[in-house]
Amino acid sequence: MADGPNGEPCASPLDLFNSIAAQGELVRTLKAEKASKDETDSAVKMLLSLKMSYKAAMGEDYKADYATEASEDFVDPWTVWTSSAKGIDYDKLIVQFGSSKIDKELINRIERATGQRPHHFLRRGIFFSHRDMNQVLDAYENKKPFYLYTGRGPSSEAMHVGHLIPFIFTKWLQDVFNVPLVVQMSDDEKYLWKDLSLDQAYSYTIENAKDIIACGFDINKTFIFSDLEYMGMSSGFYKNVVKIQKHVTFNQVKGIFGFTDSDCIGKISFPTIQAAPSFSNSFPQIFRDKTDIQCLIPCAIDQDPYFRMTRDTAPRIGYPKPALLHSTFFPALQGAQTKMSTSDPNSSIFLTDTAKQIKTKVNKHAFSGGRDTVEEDRQFGGNCDVDVSFMYLTFFLEDDDRLEQIRKDYSSGAMLTGELKKTLIDVMQPLIAEHQARRKEVTGMVKEFMTPQQLSFCFDT
Amino acid sequence: MADGPNGEPCASPLDLFNSIAAQGELVRTLKAEKASKDETDSAVKMLLSLKMSYKAAMGEDYKADYATEASEDFVDPWTVWTSSAKGIDYDKLIVQFGSSKIDKELINRIERATGQRPHHFLRRGIFFSHRDMNQVLDAYENKKPFYLYTGRGPSSEAMHVGHLIPFIFTKWLQDVFNVPLVVQMSDDEKYLWKDLSLDQAYSYTIENAKDIIACGFDINKTFIFSDLEYMGMSSGFYKNVVKIQKHVTFNQVKGIFGFTDSDCIGKISFPTIQAAPSFSNSFPQIFRDKTDIQCLIPCAIDQDPYFRMTRDTAPRIGYPKPALLHSTFFPALQGAQTKMSTSDPNSSIFLTDTAKQIKTKVNKHAFSGGRDTVEEDRQFGGNCDVDVSFMYLTFFLEDDDRLEQIRKDYSSGAMLTGELKKTLIDVMQPLIAEHQARRKEVTGMVKEFMTPQQLSFCFDT
Repeated sequence: MADGPNGEPCASPLDLFNSIAAQGELVRTLKAEKASKDETDSAVKMLLSLKMSYKAAMGEDYKADYATEASEDFVDPWTVWTSSAKGIDYDKLIVQFGSSKIDKELINRIERATGQRPHHFLRRGIFFSHRDMNQVLDAYENKKPFYLYTGRGPSSEAMHVGHLIPFIFTKWLQDVFNVPLVVQMSDDEKYLWKDLSLDQAYSYTIENAKDIIACGFDINKTFIFSDLEYMGMSSGFYKNVVKIQKHVTFNQVKGIFGFTDSDCIGKISFPTIQAAPSFSNSFPQIFRDKTDIQCLIPCAIDQDPYFRMTRDTAPRIGYPKPALLHSTFFPALQGAQTKMSTSDPNSSIFLTDTAKQIKTKVNKHAFSGGRDTVEEDRQFGGNCDVDVSFMYLTFFLEDDDRLEQIRKDYSSGAMLTGELKKTLIDVMQPLIAEHQARRKEVTGMVKEFMTPQQLSFCFDT
Repeated sequence: MADGPNGEPCASPLDLFNSIAAQGELVRTLKAEKASKDETDSAVKMLLSLKMSYKAAMGEDYKADYATEASEDFVDPWTVWTSSAKGIDYDKLIVQFGSSKIDKELINRIERATGQRPHHFLRRGIFFSHRDMNQVLDAYENKKPFYLYTGRGPSSEAMHVGHLIPFIFTKWLQDVFNVPLVVQMSDDEKYLWKDLSLDQAYSYTIENAKDIIACGFDINKTFIFSDLEYMGMSSGFYKNVVKIQKHVTFNQVKGIFGFTDSDCIGKISFPTIQAAPSFSNSFPQIFRDKTDIQCLIPCAIDQDPYFRMTRDTAPRIGYPKPALLHSTFFPALQGAQTKMSTSDPNSSIFLTDTAKQIKTKVNKHAFSGGRDTVEEDRQFGGNCDVDVSFMYLTFFLEDDDRLEQIRKDYSSGAMLTGELKKTLIDVMQPLIAEHQARRKEVTGMVKEFMTPQQLSFCFDT
């Protein structure tokens, strides 16, 4: 489970949800087994009491049906919570956040503009929402430059496959649009939020940068920077931070991020540090003093609050609003209700896992959409909508036809859970091994990627 | 009058005070002239009403007597207010702020340690309060290094003589202790608080730096920096800012500085920018990675809240607390009740004033402690405690004997207001002319003073 805004675990609604589900199961079992009236009544009483607690905590009745739309999804940079095993209701989130759906038309337009087949993250709705992507394409079609900005909060050495999603997609964007990219490593953020020293946070930056570089970014078009380091190397970064800081009040960040008077002033002003790379003159070594180069930010949708604030501020300081492409969350092995946690090694497949660890984790921990028995599986089929192994395949199995065949077979009962898991293991083992091999090769390149310097970038505007 | 914390003028208590004084004067005149009872009664009624408003605003009765101790002095970085024409009650401020008085014993110790006669700012109580100065002297006597830190908020091109006080004294400290000095130009602060662009704020930094350099600082031992510029040139500054930001909450800065939820987050986090130069590793080019070099900060006492916060935070991030030397405020020509304002050209003598302007200003605007007529002056003498010309002489006339003679003559009536003002004009005209000449000479040196580089500094610790 993700941490709350102040680092405290906010598991209670999910805990309650799970308790109710378990208690409901117990009641059904007792009734089926025709247990004593006393025993059954007592279990029912407990169930009703749990449901009342749930209603008190959530403001609405408990709904057991997975098919029911979850009206209580909660998403911000520190907390992602849903009661649905299918995960967050992303269509609702688009309405809630006021962003736009990436529809077939937009995907076709990207295909026309780039002359490339859209990435399977686009084809499969993994990048599902955007802000002003049409504006980026307008500019691109008029030969106006833009740049990509994404980032990572280096909270530990260990990255899992979910962390790669924005980078895999950003690498594709860099390739097909042939544009420069800046990658923010927010080690200052992690220092402020976690029990870390500055040196630890910076060392995680370096380790994580290796995994990012291993995704295959173009060294002539990519600048990776540590906030802690680059702030002291750039003539433009701090100036933009101060500009944004002048135009955002505590009331605003309180409303957007839920900060309180007890929060340290580092947290309170951090959103401006994440905002500043959205403006091209934060990187004078790349864009000189140009303030009008459009920025496109691919990121998971929980980062959107930072960029809503940024977009709100941009016109007031004379800068263009950054455009965004939002991804869904990568599910934990245990189910799609939450984002994963780097502190729980069993919650995902890590980039350091051995082939054996991958096999064990998938077999042991990947939440199954299958039935309770093989017989039921054969008869009724599995549920791809909640099966984590199938979800992982939508991220990592590029072959559309094969994925569709697996969906059909698993849903019909022709393919069983064990076979589905084996397919996933067969996909993930080489993928991770190849990543590890590439990571070893790029270790010596970190310094160059992190040196502020000119990138191969055309200024003909 | 100084601005309130949010930039609004907070003149009301002083306005009320002045209205009461004027109304009291009117009542006394009416009574002396035996005016009609109606007229007198109406004036008394008005006076009582004004006194009630004053009590409502200030929570205590109006006291006309200048000799009465002002119990309502208010001092913070944006507001300095007192009801006394003698100015702030500095002894009370020492108790209120919890600092220590610079007493004869400490002054003698400084003389012994440096082998130099103490500066007249020390001898005359202009630098009157300190924190941990004995610790600095302990270190100095044990051949341990320390450094000086002072600063200026460049809110306009124009500086007045009052702005020079900390710099004149700091130059003396640099000379007698032979130590390095860092000077912060908080152009980021001025950008945040005023209606200025970043470029304007930086240009004021450059102009003000010329006046500071003209005070005679040693180019081999002095580093002057713009926050806006140096933040992007230092590998140590931002790291210390973030460290402090992690250890100070919004509640704390709200209590110390009176910030509100409607303030921009730039203001809220700025105190950490002023705090960071108190720690030696903010200047790796001078002190390398040394974190334990004692800092001594000469400044006007209204800056103390920043350094109370800094001293509170220092031990929690493993740094030594900076020591401080506090000065009184330089009075406005109109009287010692307030600090001066750069926006009112008649409130002080400016560093750009011509000899003629100085003469006119002193004659026309300098608040006099003299009586209403020459005859009364001769009979009763003038009041040096409220006479601004005399106050200015305590700052700028170095000859103790001559100053004492002037005090005696003016107090006894042997010297009249006009003669006192002429003495001040004769002191200030050459002083300002010489400053202007030196300023011209140093214009070419600004870049070197502002380049981060090694200073002549001994590391034998």
